[in-house]
Amino acid sequence: MITDTDMYALSIITENRAGVLRDVATVMANYRANIQMIQQSIITSGPNTGKAYLYFEFEECGNHPDLIADLARVPSVVDVTIYPPFSRIFGSRVIIIGGGAQVAQVALGAVNEADRHNIRGERISVDTIPLVGEQNLALAVDAVARLPRASILVLAGSLMGGEVSRAVDRVRGAGIPVIALKMAGSVPEHADLVVTDPIQAGVFAVMHVSGKAVFDINRVRGREF
Amino acid sequence: MITDTDMYALSIITENRAGVLRDVATVMANYRANIQMIQQSIITSGPNTGKAYLYFEFEECGNHPDLIADLARVPSVVDVTIYPPFSRIFGSRVIIIGGGAQVAQVALGAVNEADRHNIRGERISVDTIPLVGEQNLALAVDAVARLPRASILVLAGSLMGGEVSRAVDRVRGAGIPVIALKMAGSVPEHADLVVTDPIQAGVFAVMHVSGKAVFDINRVRGREF
Repeated sequence: MITDTDMYALSIITENRAGVLRDVATVMANYRANIQMIQQSIITSGPNTGKAYLYFEFEECGNHPDLIADLARVPSVVDVTIYPPFSRIFGSRVIIIGGGAQVAQVALGAVNEADRHNIRGERISVDTIPLVGEQNLALAVDAVARLPRASILVLAGSLMGGEVSRAVDRVRGAGIPVIALKMAGSVPEHADLVVTDPIQAGVFAVMHVSGKAVFDINRVRGREF
Repeated sequence: MITDTDMYALSIITENRAGVLRDVATVMANYRANIQMIQQSIITSGPNTGKAYLYFEFEECGNHPDLIADLARVPSVVDVTIYPPFSRIFGSRVIIIGGGAQVAQVALGAVNEADRHNIRGERISVDTIPLVGEQNLALAVDAVARLPRASILVLAGSLMGGEVSRAVDRVRGAGIPVIALKMAGSVPEHADLVVTDPIQAGVFAVMHVSGKAVFDINRVRGREF
């Protein structure tokens, strides 16, 4: 397990030309830096309009001051700036997907519980999307496994099954536990935990993600509250 | 403006060795593919445990079937899979930062309003983090400018100023509008819009992000509701 103190983040502003990522990645490879995330986009406002913006997070590689100096020497690099990584700012993510009315109630529980943890120095954020339709839901559930820092998923609705249940199996297979509200359809049979009260479902999700809480979803797997 | 239909996403599973990103980026550069985001991590469970996982999103580059075939031929690449990009699944992000009780109420308004839009085919998600302390808040506000697909920020609290207000100026300078609850401190003077009711603040935020709503924050800038 990589702790967030081993992570570094920096942004690079460069001239916008093809191959910049290759050049930067070559420098990173020279230092054997283990890159966790890169974003690349074109700056659309301000003094650097039209230039390319590269943001990346990487694990400690032993000699990152030299790495940064070498990056600054890559042709067409304009600026290199160091930031705290997202993991230290936004931390672990609780993801809530489902019907709007119920997503909002789960979020209410999760945000208030996360507040209590974050006050004590943890970093837990609560991210949501209200969606309708089996295919939309299944796509979103599958995508959770690809979301950076996603730590647990809560499915908040009144009827979910079919392709959504198969997506739940895949997300759990990728190591992300799933809490489902008590609802119609087969999703509750595929979840780690079934919870009737949406506010409690949100609180449970945060308690599982927290490094300080006593709760562990693995100890109540298959139960219903 | 890039529409989400021009975007593609794919994941690549490779042997875990230094330089893979450089090799893949070289292929991307050969096709002049404009990469928007890359994530890289090590797979920790399942049959591919220990292998590297690369996910990236890129704009249409004219010949992406050939691009994908060439990626599959890179030494140590095990698998290439195509997905819908996050922009098509989770869409634009409304970010809510501040005190837990108020963040939860803004989220209530935003999630319920986003539900109404997403039912009609839009994709708006609502992401939150409850935080306390000027320095923590300022770091999180600054980081919003680096978050993928962040479209508007709502600051929900009772007292914010100082370094948070300077961060608000920077985020707005990066092109992300800011709504503040009516509160003590200087943040409301730096926001685009000040709203008293947290639920309405969440609704306004979603209305601004929506491509279908009539509301445009630029037409009410500086006003207080």
